[in-house]
Amino acid sequence: MQAAKPFRVGMIGAGYMAKLHSLSMNNLAGYTEDPADRFDLVRIVDTDAQAAEREATRWGWSEHGTDWKTVTRDPSIDVVDIATPNDSHHEICLDAFAHGKHVICEKPLSVNSEFAAEMARKAHASGRVHMVNFTYRAWPAIAQARALIKSGAIGNVRHFEGHFFQDHNNDPTIPLHWRFKKGPAGAGALGDVGAHIIDLARFLVGEVDSVVATTQRFIQERPLPHDRSQKGQVEVDDLAAAMVQFENGATGTIKASWALPGFKNDVYFVVVGDKGAVRFSWERSNELQFFDSADPQPISGYRTIPLGRAHPGAELFWFPALGGDLGVGVTAQGMGYGDAFTLSFRHFINALKTGESPAPNFVDGLRCCEIIDAILASAEQGRWVKVHRTIID
Amino acid sequence: MQAAKPFRVGMIGAGYMAKLHSLSMNNLAGYTEDPADRFDLVRIVDTDAQAAEREATRWGWSEHGTDWKTVTRDPSIDVVDIATPNDSHHEICLDAFAHGKHVICEKPLSVNSEFAAEMARKAHASGRVHMVNFTYRAWPAIAQARALIKSGAIGNVRHFEGHFFQDHNNDPTIPLHWRFKKGPAGAGALGDVGAHIIDLARFLVGEVDSVVATTQRFIQERPLPHDRSQKGQVEVDDLAAAMVQFENGATGTIKASWALPGFKNDVYFVVVGDKGAVRFSWERSNELQFFDSADPQPISGYRTIPLGRAHPGAELFWFPALGGDLGVGVTAQGMGYGDAFTLSFRHFINALKTGESPAPNFVDGLRCCEIIDAILASAEQGRWVKVHRTIID
Amino acid sequence: MQAAKPFRVGMIGAGYMAKLHSLSMNNLAGYTEDPADRFDLVRIVDTDAQAAEREATRWGWSEHGTDWKTVTRDPSIDVVDIATPNDSHHEICLDAFAHGKHVICEKPLSVNSEFAAEMARKAHASGRVHMVNFTYRAWPAIAQARALIKSGAIGNVRHFEGHFFQDHNNDPTIPLHWRFKKGPAGAGALGDVGAHIIDLARFLVGEVDSVVATTQRFIQERPLPHDRSQKGQVEVDDLAAAMVQFENGATGTIKASWALPGFKNDVYFVVVGDKGAVRFSWERSNELQFFDSADPQPISGYRTIPLGRAHPGAELFWFPALGGDLGVGVTAQGMGYGDAFTLSFRHFINALKTGESPAPNFVDGLRCCEIIDAILASAEQGRWVKVHRTIID
Amino acid sequence: MQAAKPFRVGMIGAGYMAKLHSLSMNNLAGYTEDPADRFDLVRIVDTDAQAAEREATRWGWSEHGTDWKTVTRDPSIDVVDIATPNDSHHEICLDAFAHGKHVICEKPLSVNSEFAAEMARKAHASGRVHMVNFTYRAWPAIAQARALIKSGAIGNVRHFEGHFFQDHNNDPTIPLHWRFKKGPAGAGALGDVGAHIIDLARFLVGEVDSVVATTQRFIQERPLPHDRSQKGQVEVDDLAAAMVQFENGATGTIKASWALPGFKNDVYFVVVGDKGAVRFSWERSNELQFFDSADPQPISGYRTIPLGRAHPGAELFWFPALGGDLGVGVTAQGMGYGDAFTLSFRHFINALKTGESPAPNFVDGLRCCEIIDAILASAEQGRWVKVHRTIID
Repeated sequence: MQAAKPFRVGMIGAGYMAKLHSLSMNNLAGYTEDPADRFDLVRIVDTDAQAAEREATRWGWSEHGTDWKTVTRDPSIDVVDIATPNDSHHEICLDAFAHGKHVICEKPLSVNSEFAAEMARKAHASGRVHMVNFTYRAWPAIAQARALIKSGAIGNVRHFEGHFFQDHNNDPTIPLHWRFKKGPAGAGALGDVGAHIIDLARFLVGEVDSVVATTQRFIQERPLPHDRSQKGQVEVDDLAAAMVQFENGATGTIKASWALPGFKNDVYFVVVGDKGAVRFSWERSNELQFFDSADPQPISGYRTIPLGRAHPGAELFWFPALGGDLGVGVTAQGMGYGDAFTLSFRHFINALKTGESPAPNFVDGLRCCEIIDAILASAEQGRWVKVHRTIID
Repeated sequence: MQAAKPFRVGMIGAGYMAKLHSLSMNNLAGYTEDPADRFDLVRIVDTDAQAAEREATRWGWSEHGTDWKTVTRDPSIDVVDIATPNDSHHEICLDAFAHGKHVICEKPLSVNSEFAAEMARKAHASGRVHMVNFTYRAWPAIAQARALIKSGAIGNVRHFEGHFFQDHNNDPTIPLHWRFKKGPAGAGALGDVGAHIIDLARFLVGEVDSVVATTQRFIQERPLPHDRSQKGQVEVDDLAAAMVQFENGATGTIKASWALPGFKNDVYFVVVGDKGAVRFSWERSNELQFFDSADPQPISGYRTIPLGRAHPGAELFWFPALGGDLGVGVTAQGMGYGDAFTLSFRHFINALKTGESPAPNFVDGLRCCEIIDAILASAEQGRWVKVHRTIID
Repeated sequence: MQAAKPFRVGMIGAGYMAKLHSLSMNNLAGYTEDPADRFDLVRIVDTDAQAAEREATRWGWSEHGTDWKTVTRDPSIDVVDIATPNDSHHEICLDAFAHGKHVICEKPLSVNSEFAAEMARKAHASGRVHMVNFTYRAWPAIAQARALIKSGAIGNVRHFEGHFFQDHNNDPTIPLHWRFKKGPAGAGALGDVGAHIIDLARFLVGEVDSVVATTQRFIQERPLPHDRSQKGQVEVDDLAAAMVQFENGATGTIKASWALPGFKNDVYFVVVGDKGAVRFSWERSNELQFFDSADPQPISGYRTIPLGRAHPGAELFWFPALGGDLGVGVTAQGMGYGDAFTLSFRHFINALKTGESPAPNFVDGLRCCEIIDAILASAEQGRWVKVHRTIID
Repeated sequence: MQAAKPFRVGMIGAGYMAKLHSLSMNNLAGYTEDPADRFDLVRIVDTDAQAAEREATRWGWSEHGTDWKTVTRDPSIDVVDIATPNDSHHEICLDAFAHGKHVICEKPLSVNSEFAAEMARKAHASGRVHMVNFTYRAWPAIAQARALIKSGAIGNVRHFEGHFFQDHNNDPTIPLHWRFKKGPAGAGALGDVGAHIIDLARFLVGEVDSVVATTQRFIQERPLPHDRSQKGQVEVDDLAAAMVQFENGATGTIKASWALPGFKNDVYFVVVGDKGAVRFSWERSNELQFFDSADPQPISGYRTIPLGRAHPGAELFWFPALGGDLGVGVTAQGMGYGDAFTLSFRHFINALKTGESPAPNFVDGLRCCEIIDAILASAEQGRWVKVHRTIID
């Protein structure tokens, strides 16, 4: 295997995501066995210099620093990877595109759809590759769900039920970090975890025409990060719930919360068509459920399908083909959250290699922001709101 | 055990419910071992004379006929049991109360809340016992869920997710019987199965302040019952979905459908509070799930609780006490749908014995109709609708 | 529907089973809508006169008493129903056959295979109908499992895993009743609950050739029933575990316990063949799991099949046909333990009507006792034991 | 973070395990944030030169070759990592210890307990670190299960049920590779997957005193790897089932198969004590089930515990602490099979740093081989076999 020239990456943001991104980039070529799938980890920056240094040491970033412009404006860097608070994405992305970079950006794309629209426009105009890291799309069970839907296995979609519920922020002693402030976050649970389930609704069902929504804030005040004896005001939603009308006639509900006890990491959806249904929960991420109404009544029931090499993307991992003709192979070895990022970065590097920006790109990121904005507007105004869709071309 | 004078019952409607009601009344005293818990099955009537005769023969009704007034106006009858199409409940109930009968009526109470309000008023004024057969309230897992909520085990309720989904009416060859017509049914899936989940939402969380809703009709035409070569128009919803605001500040969604493939009989709810959650699905009706956020992290997770004699009502069935002090007993023997009706009728006969009409009575039936009306109005008008609540006193 | 002459029944034993048997007999004709399916409850007897009177009052037995011979020798009685401690079955059955009665007997048939063999011989010679109430055979999910196996859906059986585990007797304060004594019970958990899973192993897989087994007693002493300040010696197994070799080449394990915390009522089996598998647990009695290895890999997984009218026996209950051509019907309404007995008694009355003794008859009861004896012998002798099979013809 | 001198590793065997081991070693220090946790991937060898080169390129091994002695005898190498066919472990390990290497060896340790005993003796005598890669021990759910057992949470263990069932080798077209031959493999499913569940039985319950077992071969012949038109004889078990007596009085069953349709990767166990139980299946590897019989009856049931940072080892992965006092954190992000190896190698490097060989070391590997030998002997001889335990000191 002949080593190809790796893509040179600079990362902005050395928080939780640095680990997942770095691991994925470092290991990708091993998984794919394609020497072109290599990233060179050039520089990582963060406003917190210690964090940047720590992550550089952990994952082999050659350099570290605090100034994000040393990433966006470094001529030796090909790719900018952005994992900063939501309100900084706009400025960084614009600068990156202005300097000819390819960009992968964490979700949500921005704190409102005006910013997001500008980012999508610039991304499109730049001719560079752009991707928003809606990492669940690449998950084999979810990719398989979509494949089943697209194949007609469940017929025409009638109804979608989706939520992303967690419970960790039910702890009132968690300090008032940036995710609880309207400015840097844009939205609360809705932006943080809701962005994912909104994206999956679009991925699995189609475009959202209109929404009606409500939001709740369960914990009004939290300790200040740097003086926990003082409290400050939470400014965002702890729960958002929306009823949605899809363009294709299906209806659905989309919900997000980070403070519902008992839900640990429940990226959940069921998509029901006139011929069947698919169902998934991240809490049992290694299985997909599929109902086929063509099954004879005595054996009619949901199949619980363990992930295996037959599912899109899983072939990279721990499911060896065994040389038999039946293609059974070892299944159900179990994949984890980190593996989702490996698959996202494979998706991204495939785009880098072809120069095209497939979904989920910045237009998908924009669509998500538009839906978030519609949900917030609906919750504030108490009425159905049509999702405004900015044309990007 | 000295036999007490049984309650003399007349039943109106000899369809599907006749079996469940008759079995429950015939067997109740054996379950409770209280000789006062006996019903005398005096007369069953139906517009279909053959059906009435058939059910009379099956279950030992002394007489059968076709004229419901021979039930409501028979001085020897104490109790009128109504299981007819929804639009007939109004006239029958009023006549029954006018003639001094106690009444148990199948859900929904009526086809609209105006009728239901009049029925509730008359019921209240009559001084007789009145009950709407929201049979799920009596189910031990659901009664236990409510007991946990009332005890504070899940804290203040934040969010409710409930649906009653079935799929049988996805079969387009099912003829256009009364449940598909607006007149006799009032609503479609919403009235048929939705009434139950609406009632459970009130039972578990509290009163609904307002709703925003949408409905869908998946199958527009069905074969005529008496000439299946011809088709007629379906007039009701196949799916209704509502977002609700509860008076106590909780939010939620309530949905109903009878045509969502893969959902067989999914009376589903999760009630999430700030300290825990309870979760239930009728598809696994013999278990209740409970999450307690006070559990230490290493063992934090939903308990799956099999039904046993510790749960309200279950002590009547197959869970013998074994003479030990720990109260473990045999659990998880399994209860069925028929047993739910036995428990409803125990509830009813307890009311007959005391003369009081506890929930779910006609006021509960009215409240359900008011919410159904609000949902239909919201779906038609595309806006939030406040639930109108008629005062009954 | 013209009333036929009912079968006149006398019941011996007014304990826990009286309720389930009486309910089943009282209600059967209503379920089947066959007027020939009626039982006349003539007399119930028990050594405990109060128990006999109580059950007579509850369920409408015309007479009650304490002398079982008033049942076996009453010329007006057609059928003897036996639900007494295991060691009494032998004498009662022989007397019943000697007096020309049909017999239904609770499991296990007797306390050892010598007695059971004599009973089977007399039953066979009597020309009367004889049945052992292995009630799980009639359960729709289990009957469906067998139908799948017989149809070849799972291919040749390779392995069987079965247990019947409960935990109630983990309570050491439960008194030393007859089930804990070798004489009246024959075996402990093995005879009480193990008999059922042994019968299912035969029902689903075939005859057992040989066994190797171990038993455990967890609680050595229990309070005396009539003086709980004193303790007496438990004489039977709390757990029995056997490895078995079936005649057809399959292997398996069969286990029974009534004192394993966490297992509530786990009648569990998985039958694995070379083309698929079926799996069931009574703790989720309203579903059957089926794996078909012919499914394409992307949708390969166990189906979870909710019970509905398509499954053998379920059509009697709460699953109305709705007049459509697809045969979907309402499924998953939920059946309970009591309904299993209704199905057993339907099986029995069908036999009474034809005069033939289909499985599970006394020969099946004998086979079960022979396997229990082999297991106990193996556990005592520490070696593989071939199951002795007495020829009955 | 100051870089420490890494441990220099040579790997022997470039098959399926090379990927999992290499990834784990490459990434470990990033996970642990300990600069001492680094491995230097010096050389990988395999009899298949192409395989060695391929894996070297994928994962950054500095050199590759075909002669394993260039690993065991290279003075610059500290650690030998062995992932070759089972029959080669003996010679390689002895040579490695003879040359002063630390050794991590894939399971089973050897093809029989005589070889294994010699290996354990030499390992012990060498003073070097030795480990057998029973990777499941380190899995957070399993480590938590053991912690619960050790803490007394389930009381005294009564019964163990364990199996490792897969189905991939049900495909008869899979060629006759080394795992199907007695010489190189020692045993079939029993050695391949059974070794893991045997090790877990010891880990969770304790030492095995004696066994009685049976084995089955389902597919007698398979195509030859290099001429698939010809077939050769399978020499090993497709299924092994054993009943076991533990030294502490508990009983259990241990089973292994790679050809049972429907079981995908079911490393399953339930450990039942007198106060509770723990239950686990690899098919739902991200959850642990725990039953506590001290729970009040109304809420008595198994807890389903999603993995989170509270569970041993999970803190390395995707479960950030959020700065709150309650310690809830993000749970249920999902870990995968690869992460299990990361945890095994953390365990190994901790041993390298201290110089001690904690379990699972070569003595544990020996114990597993002794149990495998006893199972095979029992299956051949048809009798209970006491497990011979060689003293290593």
